[in-house]
Amino acid sequence: MNKTLILIECKDEVGLVALISRVLANHNLNITAMREFVDETADRFFARIECSGNDFSEEELFTTLQSGLPQPAEVTINPNPEKRIMVLVTKEYHCLADILVRDLFNTLGGKVCCVAGNYDSLRPFTEKFDIPFHYVTHENKTKQEFEKELLQIAGSCQPDYIILAKFMRILSPEFVDQYKGRIINIHHSFLPAFVGASPYRQAFERGVKLIGATAHFVTSNLDEGPIIVQRIIPVNHTFGVSEMVKAGKEIEKAVLSRAMQLVFEDRVFITGNKTIIFE
Amino acid sequence: MNKTLILIECKDEVGLVALISRVLANHNLNITAMREFVDETADRFFARIECSGNDFSEEELFTTLQSGLPQPAEVTINPNPEKRIMVLVTKEYHCLADILVRDLFNTLGGKVCCVAGNYDSLRPFTEKFDIPFHYVTHENKTKQEFEKELLQIAGSCQPDYIILAKFMRILSPEFVDQYKGRIINIHHSFLPAFVGASPYRQAFERGVKLIGATAHFVTSNLDEGPIIVQRIIPVNHTFGVSEMVKAGKEIEKAVLSRAMQLVFEDRVFITGNKTIIFE
Amino acid sequence: MNKTLILIECKDEVGLVALISRVLANHNLNITAMREFVDETADRFFARIECSGNDFSEEELFTTLQSGLPQPAEVTINPNPEKRIMVLVTKEYHCLADILVRDLFNTLGGKVCCVAGNYDSLRPFTEKFDIPFHYVTHENKTKQEFEKELLQIAGSCQPDYIILAKFMRILSPEFVDQYKGRIINIHHSFLPAFVGASPYRQAFERGVKLIGATAHFVTSNLDEGPIIVQRIIPVNHTFGVSEMVKAGKEIEKAVLSRAMQLVFEDRVFITGNKTIIFE
Amino acid sequence: MNKTLILIECKDEVGLVALISRVLANHNLNITAMREFVDETADRFFARIECSGNDFSEEELFTTLQSGLPQPAEVTINPNPEKRIMVLVTKEYHCLADILVRDLFNTLGGKVCCVAGNYDSLRPFTEKFDIPFHYVTHENKTKQEFEKELLQIAGSCQPDYIILAKFMRILSPEFVDQYKGRIINIHHSFLPAFVGASPYRQAFERGVKLIGATAHFVTSNLDEGPIIVQRIIPVNHTFGVSEMVKAGKEIEKAVLSRAMQLVFEDRVFITGNKTIIFE
Repeated sequence: MNKTLILIECKDEVGLVALISRVLANHNLNITAMREFVDETADRFFARIECSGNDFSEEELFTTLQSGLPQPAEVTINPNPEKRIMVLVTKEYHCLADILVRDLFNTLGGKVCCVAGNYDSLRPFTEKFDIPFHYVTHENKTKQEFEKELLQIAGSCQPDYIILAKFMRILSPEFVDQYKGRIINIHHSFLPAFVGASPYRQAFERGVKLIGATAHFVTSNLDEGPIIVQRIIPVNHTFGVSEMVKAGKEIEKAVLSRAMQLVFEDRVFITGNKTIIFE
Repeated sequence: MNKTLILIECKDEVGLVALISRVLANHNLNITAMREFVDETADRFFARIECSGNDFSEEELFTTLQSGLPQPAEVTINPNPEKRIMVLVTKEYHCLADILVRDLFNTLGGKVCCVAGNYDSLRPFTEKFDIPFHYVTHENKTKQEFEKELLQIAGSCQPDYIILAKFMRILSPEFVDQYKGRIINIHHSFLPAFVGASPYRQAFERGVKLIGATAHFVTSNLDEGPIIVQRIIPVNHTFGVSEMVKAGKEIEKAVLSRAMQLVFEDRVFITGNKTIIFE
Repeated sequence: MNKTLILIECKDEVGLVALISRVLANHNLNITAMREFVDETADRFFARIECSGNDFSEEELFTTLQSGLPQPAEVTINPNPEKRIMVLVTKEYHCLADILVRDLFNTLGGKVCCVAGNYDSLRPFTEKFDIPFHYVTHENKTKQEFEKELLQIAGSCQPDYIILAKFMRILSPEFVDQYKGRIINIHHSFLPAFVGASPYRQAFERGVKLIGATAHFVTSNLDEGPIIVQRIIPVNHTFGVSEMVKAGKEIEKAVLSRAMQLVFEDRVFITGNKTIIFE
Repeated sequence: MNKTLILIECKDEVGLVALISRVLANHNLNITAMREFVDETADRFFARIECSGNDFSEEELFTTLQSGLPQPAEVTINPNPEKRIMVLVTKEYHCLADILVRDLFNTLGGKVCCVAGNYDSLRPFTEKFDIPFHYVTHENKTKQEFEKELLQIAGSCQPDYIILAKFMRILSPEFVDQYKGRIINIHHSFLPAFVGASPYRQAFERGVKLIGATAHFVTSNLDEGPIIVQRIIPVNHTFGVSEMVKAGKEIEKAVLSRAMQLVFEDRVFITGNKTIIFE
C-alpha cells in the first residue's frame, strides 16, 4: 500500500479534523499518523498527515481539500521527497563536510546540486565528492553584483533549499525574497544571545557557562528568522575563545544537520516568525 | 466553552481517526488537540483527544464510542482531573519533600491523601504539611502481614496512584496486582543498567561517565515495568559512591516529578511492557 | 588527620605552584587535591587546595603565604564551612521551598538565618520550617527606605550570602556594594538572552527552542553580574508563555540550588565579570 | 617559550605535589596547568602537568622523576603530539567519515595511516581521502588467520592507537594484548545496558526513553573495558528500531570523536577498569 503525505495550512475553524478525516476517508485514505496544531495568535491551523491507500486521484483530493478548507488555505500532497540543495560556504569545512558525506551515502534526505563559495578553498574537498564548486568572490564587487552571480548559479541548479553552511556574508532582502522560507542558516550562538559578529568572543567576554548554535530560516532581518533547532554545550572558565570556537563547531554541525533533516522531511511549518515542528 | 478530555484504547483498524472525529462532530465536540499512536506489535490504537463543546451527553458519547470501536476497546471521558495519591517512603526525604511541597501549593496535579513509611523518621516532616503519616514497620512480620497493613491504609485512602518515593521494600505480585498500572516507582539508575540493589555502587565500580534515574510503573518483575521517564547526569572519576548518591538524588526527584505530572495529566498509556506518552 | 582548605588569589608569577607546595610541605601539610587557574587577561592566579595534616599553626601559615605571594594576594584558610544565609523572596515558592527543605535536612551547605519578603504570602510556609519571616513591603516607600529595612534585618542576621530566590525588586548599587560578591540571584532566562522583565514572554515571542535559567552574582548592573550556573530545557511550538513559566520553574530551582552548592563549598572565585569554578 | 607536557603515574605518597613541583622548578620549568588525582582503591597517583620553559635536559628530568617517585612509577615527557591511527571498519560509514574528514583538515589530533575493513565497501570512500584501504575478509578463515592479517597491516603501519569505527568483529585476547590500552571501540549503547549484539533492538523491546553510545578501551572482556565517553539522546514510543539506529549513529559519531580527542591529547589515564580524564 502506498504512503501519502499531506500538508495542510489554513485559517482555523471548528471541526477541521472531522472535515479533513472525512474527505480522506472518502478518497479511500487511511490516516496512519496525524499531527496538527493551531497557532491561536495567527488563527491558523497546521497539519501533517500520513496516510495509506492508493485508490484515489491526487488532483481530486487536492481540489476537494483546497476548496473545502477555510481560506486562505494551502494544501500540499506528496511533496518532492528528495529536495534539491544548494550549499553556500566561506572557508570553514565542518558543516559542508557533514552535508557532502550524507549526500554521498544518501542519508541527507536531499541531493546537493552544487556548492558555491566566496573563497575557493573548499573546492578540492567538494570536488572529491563529484559536486560542482562555484567560486564567486565578493571582492571588488557591489553586493548586488555578488548576489547576481549567486542567483545565476541558483537559477541553473533550481534548488528547493539553499543552505548557508557557515557562509559569512549577509544576504540582501532582495536575495532572500526570491527564496522565501527556503534559505537555512546556521548561526554560531544561542539566539537571541550574541547576534551579529564574533558570538564566541562575545560569549567569552560575558563569561557564559553554555554556548550554543541555532539553525533558522533566513529573513531580511539578520539573525531574526524563524528558529528551527537550537542546542547548547557546557563550557567553563578554562575555555578561551578558540576552545569555544572548536567546541562550537561540533554543535553547529549537529544542529544544522538536524534542522535539514526536519525540513527535508516536511516536518517544519513557518508561522510568522516562528516554526511549528511535527517531530 | 467546556474542555472535554477523551482517552481511547482499542484494536487498530483502518479509518479510526475518521470514525472517531465523526462521532465527536455528531456530539457537537470540536477537536482542539489530538494525539494518536498505533502499537503495531500489539495491533492496538491509542488516542488522547482534547475537545471543546458542552452540548452533549457524556453517557451517550461513551456508549457510541465504546460500542462503535473495534473490540476490545477502552474509552474514558473526562477522567478525574485531580488524582488521589498515596506515598510510600523509607528514610530518604528528597522525593517526598518534592511531592509534599507541590501538593501544598497545588501544583502536583493530584492530592496526597496519606504517606506511609516502614520507618517513622519522615513523620515530623510529613506532618508539617498536615498530611497523615502511617508508620508500618516491616520488622518481625511476614511480607504478607506487612503488605496487609499497607493495603488497609490504601483501602481507607482509596488512591488513584501509589507513589514509591524511595520506598526500599519490594512489593509482592499480589500487592501489585491490586493496583495494576497505578504504582509508580523511582529507580536510582538508568534501567536496564544496574537493576537491583546499590546501583550507585555498581555504577562506581563499572566506571560509567553518566548516572541516571528511571521512573516506571511497577509490575511483578522487579525493575522491569513500563518506563515513564529517564534522565541522566554526567559524572567523572572524581565521583565516589557518596558523590554519586548525592548527585543522583537531584535527578531522581526531577524524574519522579516529571513522571507524576505526565501520568496525572492522563498523557501516559501502557502497552505491554512499554509506555506511550503524549507530551 | 584534619582536612585543611586553602583559597589563594594573587598576581600571577612564574613558580607559584612550587612556591605554595613548598610552603605547605614546610607546615607538614600534604596536598590531597589542588585546582588552579590563571586568568591571563587579569594576570591573576587562583587556587583551591585541600590538604591533610594537623601539625601546623594556621596564623603562621597564613602570614607566610600572605606575605610570600606576589601582591596583591588574598589568602583564606579554612573558611567557615557552614555559611549563614538570608533569603529574599516575593511571591513564588519553588526556590524558597527547595532552600528550606535542604536547610531542614542539613544538605544546603549552609544555614538559613531568615527570610524576608516584599509580600507576606510565603510567611506560613517559611514558618513551618521554624525560620523567621520578615515582611517588608516596598509599597509607599522610596527604594532607599525599603532597602534600609532590609539592611537592618540583614544586619541582625549577619549573612555570609544573600540569596534572591525569585525576589522581583531591583537592588540599588548602594545595597549591592554592602554585600559585594555575596548576593546570588536566579534569573529566569539564559543570559544574556532576554535580560530584564518577562523573559518567558520574550522567549515565546521569539520562538526559541530552548529556555534556560542563570544563577549569577549580583552587581550594580542588572543581569550583568558574574554567571555561576546556567542550564536549559527544550521547548517547542506547543509551549505557550504559561507552559514556559511552569517548565522554567523546574530549571530555575535546579540552577539556583547548584550555584549555592558550589559557592557554599568555596569552589567559586570571581575574576572581573566572570567566575572560575573548581568543580 | 616552549611548552612541555609531563604525564606521571606512580604509587601514592604524602608530599608528591611538593616533590614534583620542586623537581620541575629545579629544571627551570614553570607549571602553567596541573591536574592530579589519587585513585585510593588502587593507591595510585596520576598527574598531567603543562609547563613552560626550555632550559632543561629532557633526559635528566626524566631520570630524576622516574627514580625519585614512589615505585612503580611511569613518567612520560612530551609524548608524541600527533598519534598514528589505524582504523578498523565493517560496513557503516558514519564514524569513518568523521575520522577521515578531521584527518584531512588536521583537526583529528592524529594522522590516519590506514583503514582496514572486513568488507570492501568503504574502500572507494577511504581512497577519496588518499588513505590506503586494506580489505581483509573474515570469511573462510579462522579468527587467528583473520587477525594475523590485521596484525601484519598494523605492523607496517605502527599505529599508536587502533580505532574500531563500527568494526563488527570481536577481537581475541591475543590481539588485544598486543595493543593493550591502545584500542578504542564505540559501542552503540549506554554500557553496561545492552551489552552484546543488537543493542537498539534490545532498547526498543525494553521501551527505554533514552539511548546512548559508549567509547571505551578494548580489553579481553567484551564491552567491559574502561569507559572514556558516554552520551545519550532521548527517544520515545514513536521510535522503532530503525529510527533508533539512525538517531544512534549521530551520537556514536560524536562520542567516538570526543573520546579520540581526549586520548590523543593525552588526557586519559587508565586505572584498573576505569579511566581518569583530565578535561
